[in-house]
Amino acid sequence: MEMIIYQNCYNALDIATAEKNVDYNVLICACLLHDIGRKEQFENPKLCHAMVGGEKAYNFLIDNQFDSLFAEKVKHCIQAHRYRQNNSPQSLEAKILFDADKLDATGTLGIARTLFYKGTVGEPLYSILPSGRISDGTDDEKPSFFQEYKFKLEKLYNRFYTVRGNEIAKERQQTAISFYNDMLREVRDSYDRGLNLLDKRIK
Amino acid sequence: MEMIIYQNCYNALDIATAEKNVDYNVLICACLLHDIGRKEQFENPKLCHAMVGGEKAYNFLIDNQFDSLFAEKVKHCIQAHRYRQNNSPQSLEAKILFDADKLDATGTLGIARTLFYKGTVGEPLYSILPSGRISDGTDDEKPSFFQEYKFKLEKLYNRFYTVRGNEIAKERQQTAISFYNDMLREVRDSYDRGLNLLDKRIK
Repeated sequence: MEMIIYQNCYNALDIATAEKNVDYNVLICACLLHDIGRKEQFENPKLCHAMVGGEKAYNFLIDNQFDSLFAEKVKHCIQAHRYRQNNSPQSLEAKILFDADKLDATGTLGIARTLFYKGTVGEPLYSILPSGRISDGTDDEKPSFFQEYKFKLEKLYNRFYTVRGNEIAKERQQTAISFYNDMLREVRDSYDRGLNLLDKRIK
Repeated sequence: MEMIIYQNCYNALDIATAEKNVDYNVLICACLLHDIGRKEQFENPKLCHAMVGGEKAYNFLIDNQFDSLFAEKVKHCIQAHRYRQNNSPQSLEAKILFDADKLDATGTLGIARTLFYKGTVGEPLYSILPSGRISDGTDDEKPSFFQEYKFKLEKLYNRFYTVRGNEIAKERQQTAISFYNDMLREVRDSYDRGLNLLDKRIK
């Protein structure tokens, strides 16, 4: 968790190098606090950790004598860091935090974190279609690693707001595509060949 | 779990196509039963699931009127399917099961299953060295994905007994190497750049 917070902050600082007039106090504060609503969302999945986290951060800052304009700016960054149609990032710092957060879902790290998460919730790597083939994940209803790749990871790369965020994402895109393609080929090869051999053996 | 059992059986049938005089009844029976000692090992990590599983399979087969020679052959396959210096596979079927089992740790599937497992036990993706850099996993004492890659996954490819097992493993080796190299580069780039920028910002 600690590592993920740092990673987010590092991404944000990297993105900020290509921008002018960044308010670094707002940005770093928002990076450090952006996931403080996770516990509430975990305990009640109907809650959005971005909305709850923005409120918590605002109250925390006001209680600690930060001025309300500063606290408002941080709150906006945090509340807009998820994909929500009705809550997109407006300020420069909010756009940077949004992109920094999305970068962790790109490339090999996005693959690794998704597989890790599937382990924590016990969801499978792939699903089997009614035809008996391994699904590539497209339009799957059941959750799996391939389903999440197709539904979320694959579509990330055109959704960045900043120049540098977009640049890093594009640099990493091929490593994620390669892993997915390699894995789909390897598991399908093995499965198709084996199923065929088992059929013959049984007959 | 069910999928993993099939995968193992499919791998074994594929490997067997390149061998002569395979006893398919022994082989398929051993594939289906090879992990039945997992529960005992999970409940008591001092137990070896291969040793316990071999005994359980033997008793199960005897109780169900299989002859004792057949049950012995299946038991040997199951007991020799792990890396153990004092219990290496002797029969052809045991060598096939061993290789079939190891194949699931090669290529992208080995990467995916390791990351998935790290999620189930909550171990990190990598460790930070005292120097502040991300470790590549070599000689790490703390468990992590990179540590397991260096300690186990990377060294698998020269340990196959069968021609076809060795062939499939070698075909998949590059996809695992690529993922590890890409991930190490991506996380180190991001970390090194960000740490540097944060240092400057603090000073």
